[in-house]
This record gives sequence, C-alpha cells and structure tokens, in this order.
Amino acid sequence: MKKLLNAPSDIVVESLRGLGLAHPELRVDLNHRIVYRSDAPVPGKVALISGGGSGHEPLHGGFVGPGMLDAAVAGEVFTSPVPDQIVEATKNVDSGAGVVHIVKNYTGDVMNFEMAAEIAAAETGVEVVAVVTDDDVAVQDSLYTAGRRGVGVTVLAEKIAGAAADAGRDLNGVADIVRKVNENGRSMGVALTSCTVPAAGKPTFDLPGTDMEIGIGIHGEPGRRRVPLAPAKEIAEMLVEPILADLDFTGGDGVIAFVNGLGASPLLELYLMYGEVAAVLEKAGVRVARSLVGPYITSLDMAGCSLTLLKVDDELVRLWDAPVRTPGLRWGV
Amino acid sequence: MKKLLNAPSDIVVESLRGLGLAHPELRVDLNHRIVYRSDAPVPGKVALISGGGSGHEPLHGGFVGPGMLDAAVAGEVFTSPVPDQIVEATKNVDSGAGVVHIVKNYTGDVMNFEMAAEIAAAETGVEVVAVVTDDDVAVQDSLYTAGRRGVGVTVLAEKIAGAAADAGRDLNGVADIVRKVNENGRSMGVALTSCTVPAAGKPTFDLPGTDMEIGIGIHGEPGRRRVPLAPAKEIAEMLVEPILADLDFTGGDGVIAFVNGLGASPLLELYLMYGEVAAVLEKAGVRVARSLVGPYITSLDMAGCSLTLLKVDDELVRLWDAPVRTPGLRWGV
Repeated sequence: MKKLLNAPSDIVVESLRGLGLAHPELRVDLNHRIVYRSDAPVPGKVALISGGGSGHEPLHGGFVGPGMLDAAVAGEVFTSPVPDQIVEATKNVDSGAGVVHIVKNYTGDVMNFEMAAEIAAAETGVEVVAVVTDDDVAVQDSLYTAGRRGVGVTVLAEKIAGAAADAGRDLNGVADIVRKVNENGRSMGVALTSCTVPAAGKPTFDLPGTDMEIGIGIHGEPGRRRVPLAPAKEIAEMLVEPILADLDFTGGDGVIAFVNGLGASPLLELYLMYGEVAAVLEKAGVRVARSLVGPYITSLDMAGCSLTLLKVDDELVRLWDAPVRTPGLRWGV
Repeated sequence: MKKLLNAPSDIVVESLRGLGLAHPELRVDLNHRIVYRSDAPVPGKVALISGGGSGHEPLHGGFVGPGMLDAAVAGEVFTSPVPDQIVEATKNVDSGAGVVHIVKNYTGDVMNFEMAAEIAAAETGVEVVAVVTDDDVAVQDSLYTAGRRGVGVTVLAEKIAGAAADAGRDLNGVADIVRKVNENGRSMGVALTSCTVPAAGKPTFDLPGTDMEIGIGIHGEPGRRRVPLAPAKEIAEMLVEPILADLDFTGGDGVIAFVNGLGASPLLELYLMYGEVAAVLEKAGVRVARSLVGPYITSLDMAGCSLTLLKVDDELVRLWDAPVRTPGLRWGV
C-alpha cells in the first residue's frame, strides 16, 4: 500500500484537520469528526446534514458551505458515523426550522441516522426528516445494503436541496426536493482497479489482468459482471444502457449528466468518458441540460468512474444553478 | 495499462472533445487542439496563452475562461505543441493589446513557443511576450530541461496574471506579474508510483516495493533521491525543507500554499498532506495567506503530490482573490 498518510488509524481525523486548515470558512470539530459551516445555525433556515463513511472525498465534508450542507459527519473509512456524532451535528445546526438528513442507502448509515434523529428529537425537540438516496441501478441488494445503493445522486441532492433551503423552503419542502432528486436520478459505475482500505493495507478485491467490474459499488462491493477492459466508447454504453432501461430520460427539460471519477482516474480520462457518454445520450434522444465532470464521490484510490443522470425540470435546473460555496463545488460566489 | 480510453493515439483529441461538450462556454478547435474562451479576443484586453504536453489536466485547457487564460494549446501526452498550433491560438486571441505566453521550462515547449511568437509577429504583427516558469527546486537540469523545470507555480501564475489582464494592465505589466509569481514561487514533488503514458502502455519508470521518489518531475523525470515510503509528516518535511532552503518565505504577507495531487492520490490524502505541510510551515515561521488543495497539475495517473509555495504581497493576494471562471478554478462568478 502506497498512500500519503501517517498511521492508517489516524487518516480520517488528520485529513479533516487539513480540510479545516485549508478552509478557514469551515469549522471542524475533530473530536466528533464534524465539518460545519462556521456560521451554523443559520437563523430561520432549514439545516442540511449528510455524512457516512470516509474515503469518498470531497463527499461529504467538502460539500459544507453556503448553498449546500450545514454539516457533514465523518465515519471511519467505509464505516458509518455513530449516532452520537450525528446527534451532536443535528443539535448544532438546528435554527428551529428543522434538519434534513441526507443518507446514502447502506444499512449502517440508515440505522445510525435513524437512531440519531430519535435521540435528537427526544433530547432537544429538533424536528428531523431523513431522506435515503438509492440511485445505483447496478444491483438490487448488496454487501452492505438492502435495496439499491446510494451513490452519485447524493452529490446532486446535496447541491439542489442546499439551494432549496437557502431559498427559504420549509422542512418538508426541502425533504421533498431531496426525494424528487433521488426519484429522478440513476447511477452506474465501473472499476478498473480495486481500492485499498488503509487499515487493511491491501486491495479490497482482486481485479486481475485486464478485467474491469461493471456495476461496482463505492466500497468495492460486487457489481453486475466482470468483463475484459473495453474501449471507452463501449464502457459508456455499458453505463448508459442500464440507466436508460430503468427510467425514461428522454423529453422534458433534459438531464444533468454527471461523470464522476472514483479516485485514481485523472481528468484527462474523465473528460474523454464524458465525450463518449454525451454521444451515447444524443443517440438515445436524451438532452443534456447541465453537466458535471470530476472526482466528487470517490472510492479511495479506485480507478474507474460512475455515471449519474438526473432528469430535471425548470425548478431543479434553477436550484442547480444557484450560488454555492464549498471546497468541492463552488460557483456564483 | 488500465485506462478509460479508446485508441491511445486519440486520447488527447477525444478528451478535448469531452471538455468542449461539458463546457459550452469554451470553444474547442479539435483540429488545432486549442481551447478558447468563446468570447476571445476580448476587446482591449491583453490575452494570455499557455499550453504544453497533455497529461497534466486540468492544466492548461481547464484553466481557460474569464480571469485566467484566453486559450490553451494542447500537445500530445508529455509532448510540446507544435509552433503552428501556438501561432493559430496567438492570432485568434489578440485584440491588438498583445499576447503573453506562459511557458513551462521544458526544451521543446520553450523552443516551439519562441518560434511561434516570431512567426505570429512576422505574419500579423501581434506583439508577444513570453515568460518561462522554472519553479521546481528538485534538480538543476533534467531529462527535458536546461535549468529548473516549470511545475506548480504555472497554475498560480495563470490565475494571477489572468486577473491582472482583466484589471486592464498592459502587455509588459501582465508579463511582469508572471515573472513576479515565478520569482517568488518554488515547488517540490514526490511520486509514490510511476505514471503510464498511454502510447507506451507500461509505467514510465520502476518504483518498486515501498520506494518513493523525492523531487519527481511531472513527466516522471528523476528527482533527487529514492527512499522508502515515509509517514506523511516526514514527507511534508522533505517537501518543505528544500523549498525554504531556496528562498526565504518568512515575514511579509505570507504565502499561498498549494498542495497538488499528481493524478491518482485522492483528496482524503491530499488534505492530510496539507495539514502536515501547514504544521511544518508554522514551525518554520511561514504564514499561510491562502491555500489551494487538489489535483491541478497532474502527471497522468501518478500517485503522489507536489507542494508549491508562493510568497505574496497585497497585490498578489488581491489578484488571487479576483473572480475566475474556468472548469478547473472558479470563484466569485
């Protein structure tokens, strides 16, 4: 294992420390491993929290700031945060308008966020609405998941719901937007190599020779099938087809097309993939309204990419375009 | 070799195609492999061009846009663009106020940009001033370089000079700003793995077992020494020390501290490294005024990072903070 770290057991807290030093506009509680907007709670605004296992950066800590999350709660690498952390964050961001939890669909996350919402409500009366994302069309159940896994749509939901909260929507209104994004978004990923969990020190799975894994999970969970490495053109088809088979993305106001890097695939390759995806979408009659290309929900040092399509209407495009100021996504301010 | 590509010979043009599709605010000339601001030439403004071999994305094509470059010229992977391409870009961005070429110090780039400036001047009378960046303290001469290599400072120079051009400075004024950034900036890199040039299909160099290469070049050129992989704390010292030994960064208005990912090292590790670098700088009495963390000048799929320090004054901080709108760097708009 060749990584930039000290002791593997310290990687999460040390990375959060660096994030806080590099971004003085954030407040990082290293004890609870929470990244806050430094002006949280924002008076009158519904607060947004997300979190989960580390190893997916910039998700979630890099998406804290005006126009996106009020706080992000970091678990150990690929491990859910514990309820105490989530309770602490929930209490600290609530302005009285309530808190939305955006939770990726992994058993540990769903359970711990649920427990935290109950504890926070019982202790301080804060109103919490949790929305679970489950956009990965690759497999129905998985290693850590009943139902579909939550992946790339989470990034888009955090951005869009953040804008909705900024625009003054109430608790149920913001939660509804997260649901709308999740219902209209689908994803599919491909791994060219395994990732290596620092504490394990060796690759999570074996992907020998020229094989690639179609439908990979962001923790290295098995996908649909293992096939020989194909040209990017064919990989684009293998990602787009199952997504279009799952939901009709034609017509209307088009889609946000999001080509995501899994950690070790550089932008040179990601933009090439975007070009191939765009060609497949055009042939399928899917109009691209907006795009996003880059490593936004990673899987440690895995090589590969994922594609997320989100069907949008005027409302979602307007919320997508609204100003955002976080380490990972920034425009308009 | 496991990469997202079709034929290795098409990777540059296909990646540029994707960049253009993902960013309709840019105009991409695939024939000449040039990325333009779509509103170039901007009346009355000094134009800024950079370019070089591909494989360092988002440098340079991802830094085209308001507040940064007017055009970027892409060579093949790790190969200088040819004079014809540079001439074409130079003519097309000149509004009459002249063009600054920002050129990383590699023999082919320096020669081809020089030749292009002469041809463009002879053919259309455009005034060109070229400034060469050579900030890498690792080695004096190198595989493709007489003198020091141009690396991370190029990113900062493109941003800061772009703001100076936007602010209405004249040709020599903008060129002077690039020189000032180069003179006050120093860099040092470390590779944990080699990169793989697509056309070669195998790693450029051998970095066996747990070795790392201190002082690596962005094309895999040899550094200062090969040592066993060390904890991030020690790597931070190995990067900071030679930089501080080369220029006094204490006092004044502090530095921009830029921790750059070389392509395959994820943000989890880069922020951890930033934390370690910040600690070493604090101990050395160097004040951090601004920071930048992420993969901005990459070396294909190399794992590792580089550190660039830029000594700043009020003027440079103001220009750094000015609005910029490019695929790779964006704030204020």
